[in-house]
Amino acid sequence: MKHQDLIFSNDVASQLDVLVEKYKPSKVFVLVDANTEKMVLPQLVTQSSVIANATVITIEAGDTNKNINSLMHIWSSLVEGGATRKSLLVNLGGGVVTDIGGFAGATFKRGIRFVNIPTTLLSAVDAAVGGKTGINFNGYKNEIGAFCEAEAVIISTRYFSTLSSEELLSGYAEMLKHGLISNADTYNRLLANDVVNIEAEQMLQLLQESVMVKKRVVEEDPTEKGIRRALNLGHTAGHAFESLALQRNKPIPHGYAVAWGLVMELVLSHMRLQFPSDELARLATYIYDNYGAFNITCDDYATLIEFMRHDKKNDSASEINFTMLKQVGDIHIDCIASEEDIKTALDIYRDFMHI
Amino acid sequence: MKHQDLIFSNDVASQLDVLVEKYKPSKVFVLVDANTEKMVLPQLVTQSSVIANATVITIEAGDTNKNINSLMHIWSSLVEGGATRKSLLVNLGGGVVTDIGGFAGATFKRGIRFVNIPTTLLSAVDAAVGGKTGINFNGYKNEIGAFCEAEAVIISTRYFSTLSSEELLSGYAEMLKHGLISNADTYNRLLANDVVNIEAEQMLQLLQESVMVKKRVVEEDPTEKGIRRALNLGHTAGHAFESLALQRNKPIPHGYAVAWGLVMELVLSHMRLQFPSDELARLATYIYDNYGAFNITCDDYATLIEFMRHDKKNDSASEINFTMLKQVGDIHIDCIASEEDIKTALDIYRDFMHI
Repeated sequence: MKHQDLIFSNDVASQLDVLVEKYKPSKVFVLVDANTEKMVLPQLVTQSSVIANATVITIEAGDTNKNINSLMHIWSSLVEGGATRKSLLVNLGGGVVTDIGGFAGATFKRGIRFVNIPTTLLSAVDAAVGGKTGINFNGYKNEIGAFCEAEAVIISTRYFSTLSSEELLSGYAEMLKHGLISNADTYNRLLANDVVNIEAEQMLQLLQESVMVKKRVVEEDPTEKGIRRALNLGHTAGHAFESLALQRNKPIPHGYAVAWGLVMELVLSHMRLQFPSDELARLATYIYDNYGAFNITCDDYATLIEFMRHDKKNDSASEINFTMLKQVGDIHIDCIASEEDIKTALDIYRDFMHI
Repeated sequence: MKHQDLIFSNDVASQLDVLVEKYKPSKVFVLVDANTEKMVLPQLVTQSSVIANATVITIEAGDTNKNINSLMHIWSSLVEGGATRKSLLVNLGGGVVTDIGGFAGATFKRGIRFVNIPTTLLSAVDAAVGGKTGINFNGYKNEIGAFCEAEAVIISTRYFSTLSSEELLSGYAEMLKHGLISNADTYNRLLANDVVNIEAEQMLQLLQESVMVKKRVVEEDPTEKGIRRALNLGHTAGHAFESLALQRNKPIPHGYAVAWGLVMELVLSHMRLQFPSDELARLATYIYDNYGAFNITCDDYATLIEFMRHDKKNDSASEINFTMLKQVGDIHIDCIASEEDIKTALDIYRDFMHI
């Protein structure tokens, strides 16, 4: 796996200048969405001559635009802007921008350098590190993509002040997940926080700790043949909740889906691996208090199971595969659950969520 | 770089069965174009239960169909056919099928296994080995793609009997290139042959020697940072000839473009590195006798230079980069030529081609 520069700093402009000095790109392109074009780019243009002189490529905001049309727009803009193999693409935005920009960078002329500057907590903690790039396709999330790490990621908390509490909570769910798969200390520190009112410096430190959990796992298993599946904790159920919400035309934030998915999958972990019931109850209470509940009835079970079955993490279409925990930090990957188990776990999830 | 099974055998069906036994895919898909669907698939269906039970995906034949629409058709067919990460895609065809099928395989669910079975000499010697996958985009060849090696390539001469002499000559030009970058022995053996009437067994042996030249170079430098550029010999000029022909609405076979490109680039090699003039004349005569001439006038020079400038191999848009030879087998990569040099070389190319 190639070396990736992982930079924790609130002086984004200077760090970017250093990187450009190092890479000496033939040309610089910066990818933004309609939000970061308005909220982040103008400030950065005044601070960084690299960004001031870059060719700007803009896509529509939102996960529904992480699609083949936006991707083709980026490719065309690179062609028309005279990009060569030595050009640099800077992805400035949330997970949609870093995912699709990463995939564009991975595939333009069979691969050019790209740098990610995540602007949301969720993309800082999750999407911008680990090399998963891609787009949604035919109604499935991240169906098309590549494993390709950014040359560098500049992680800061400076853009978080404009985030809503919903966006902060969404990112925090991934940090909780990293806590659950690392150790009780880290996990307990996370549960002790009031996410929405946390101080910027304290957040940068928690963020750094959290990103390093992910980085260690990814380095051990870049293409997700084994232990990287630890990072899927909460995601098999979470993606299913997310897909169901989309089907209802009431999309939910990814991190919220993961938060509820964590509860559901720790229920399964309790059923199958005796994950401690008091820990399970503590997490469920924290999630319910901060995230509320995702509303399902038993009429949704069949649909949810169908979504889980289609998950990329399943080796065959007939099995449903989960990452489970025996304790905080004690990870068991490739745990198969039966439909009956899943239905029971959904029942218990609903109890915890008071629905 | 991952291990790639490279199998030279005319018993394609048995070899494929062995691979499937080894990989144990959840499902097998076979990609063909309209030609191989008609000419090759029916025979293979009777010989291989793997192919008989596979889901067939068909695209239109020809380089103009190596595009985003065909790619989306392949992706959709994989989704609809229930492909998982453990599925196998078999690419059965010429360079268009192996290039686009390879890219589909590299990107579906961020990468599934694929096996190439080249059915033309050109794809056997070139396209099916080395991991360059991709599609044409916005009028540029292979503008979008990825470096991703097939899990295995089954190379045989059994489908060559249906090839036209034009198709045989097209593939042979790449073999000549491999001869030029390896050693005088290999090169002289190639020049001694009557391509169109060569025996199948002798061809399989020459082919194996030629593919191994490429394999050694690719293994040394999979992502084309250095010595792999040796394989670009003849291709900077060749691609320009190809693009000009396309612009004239009179496409030429890729190998023919490479043959003429080799003459043009050995002229440059003579001018810049004193490549021996008698060797240059011998190649030019062989090419003219077997491939005829690609007709250009000095009115085409500016357009050709523009095409060369856009080549992916250039590090910046202002330089034109060539691989050159000092002797057969003595490779110099990253040689910059001026516009004046290129114009002079095109003049001399025209002399050799009697135009």
